[in-house]
Amino acid sequence: MSENKVLKIGDKILLIGLGLMGGSYAKALIKAGFMVYALDPDEFSIYFAKHEKMIHEGATSIEEAEAKGLFDADCVVFAIYPNLMLEWIEKHQQHLKSGIIVTDISGVKRQIVDKAQELLRSDLEFIGAHPMCGKESYGITNSDDSSFRIANFIITPTIKNTWRGITFARELADAMGFYKISVLSPEEHDDMIGFLSQLTHIIAISLMNCNENDHLQDYTGDSFRDLTRIAKINERMWPELFSLNKDLLCGHIDSFINEMQSMKELIANSDIKGMEEKCIHSTARRQLFDRK
Amino acid sequence: MSENKVLKIGDKILLIGLGLMGGSYAKALIKAGFMVYALDPDEFSIYFAKHEKMIHEGATSIEEAEAKGLFDADCVVFAIYPNLMLEWIEKHQQHLKSGIIVTDISGVKRQIVDKAQELLRSDLEFIGAHPMCGKESYGITNSDDSSFRIANFIITPTIKNTWRGITFARELADAMGFYKISVLSPEEHDDMIGFLSQLTHIIAISLMNCNENDHLQDYTGDSFRDLTRIAKINERMWPELFSLNKDLLCGHIDSFINEMQSMKELIANSDIKGMEEKCIHSTARRQLFDRK
Repeated sequence: MSENKVLKIGDKILLIGLGLMGGSYAKALIKAGFMVYALDPDEFSIYFAKHEKMIHEGATSIEEAEAKGLFDADCVVFAIYPNLMLEWIEKHQQHLKSGIIVTDISGVKRQIVDKAQELLRSDLEFIGAHPMCGKESYGITNSDDSSFRIANFIITPTIKNTWRGITFARELADAMGFYKISVLSPEEHDDMIGFLSQLTHIIAISLMNCNENDHLQDYTGDSFRDLTRIAKINERMWPELFSLNKDLLCGHIDSFINEMQSMKELIANSDIKGMEEKCIHSTARRQLFDRK
Repeated sequence: MSENKVLKIGDKILLIGLGLMGGSYAKALIKAGFMVYALDPDEFSIYFAKHEKMIHEGATSIEEAEAKGLFDADCVVFAIYPNLMLEWIEKHQQHLKSGIIVTDISGVKRQIVDKAQELLRSDLEFIGAHPMCGKESYGITNSDDSSFRIANFIITPTIKNTWRGITFARELADAMGFYKISVLSPEEHDDMIGFLSQLTHIIAISLMNCNENDHLQDYTGDSFRDLTRIAKINERMWPELFSLNKDLLCGHIDSFINEMQSMKELIANSDIKGMEEKCIHSTARRQLFDRK
């Protein structure tokens, strides 16, 4: 069977970026039997990953990676912020081996995948991917692949992708043990993520920031804690993601605000029947989202 | 020491209403050594509570309660919806023993406490109380006093309350093992609850109802699940609570929507710096709300 696979056990995988997600990929991929390489300018991250046996080899600069043969990799996974990835491709793609597949992990797809495919040499294939398993922490020391087994993995091919590229992404996700692997267009992906993930973060931040009363924490219960858990947010990554998806995200913000306004009107009018209907609808819809 | 207490071990406590909270109180109070009586029109609830040894005696009607001596109770706890409590006081308070203290559990205070104190006979004292431990379930079979030990208990006295009434409420909460007991004015309470609990429920309902896409559940992660956990909501209780607190609640909704609008503007303008500031502020504020 193995010879029918695009991604074969023992293949060399180069991770560009070794933070929370790069580190988590490293752990999962080394367990799955691949040769795992990493390139990250942060010396500690590379040292830590080697010491913890999360990677076979690592480098902190292009020159070192070149010298150590890291660019001999059979595929590349970008695990850095989206705009940084585009910059990297522009500046350094000449180092990559011909014919390989390149993928990413970024949380928005339309702008990133199109641009990456435009920039990339014609002998390389870029396939967009998004492992949906965020955390309120960062850095390699927090990396953890155990959440993959309950997480969705979304592949976002465009018309420029081949069967080989899509299959590669599927096999990669499968090797890392993701719970469910789906294929969506970049548009469908961004719309879905704009609602389920980005809007929820905007809500959490806004709820956290809209009331400066410092005594509130004395009375906080689980509802407020649950709604603001994700208000602890990586300020370097999220603004970039919001901005890259602003059209769809602003649309979702508008729909949500409209719904809040309509609830407010019912409350202001003491329209008990109308509020009851909203509660019944909400309760019924929420059942659909319980974990199976 | 015991003789200095307002509430003494062995005292007879009558619970009016034996649902989720009435049942939870019953469990905690019987363990603490009180005589626990309950009045609830639902035959199953009374049967269940007696069978499970959650109460010493129960009745499903005023007549039965009278016949069984339940109105000989040394204090009364209303564990029914707020407007229903006011109705009960109006219709049936002649049955209560002179000099006793009456308390409640309702989630809004200004309108309820004032009206209850107005309606109540002058030989009885009403002291408002709010055990902050909601659940997305109801009915006596879901009752559970184990959450009390991590929950806040708020006492909301007015100018009409005596030292004896306030001490009684404090001793009652203490006997049931609440984590923290605070005293707030009804206004402070309603403002705090309007923000921490009511606004969060309105947000969860609105998020659940603002997008009818049925395929979303396939991709839902923890963020969306956490933000909508409380969108499963008791449609009989909450609209009444929202309506009874509508002035303060609508103010909190407005502040929150303003904050959302300001985030939306930053996103629409790709103002990365502005978004970063919001994220940093939100992260710092959220730390304050971590459980100690």
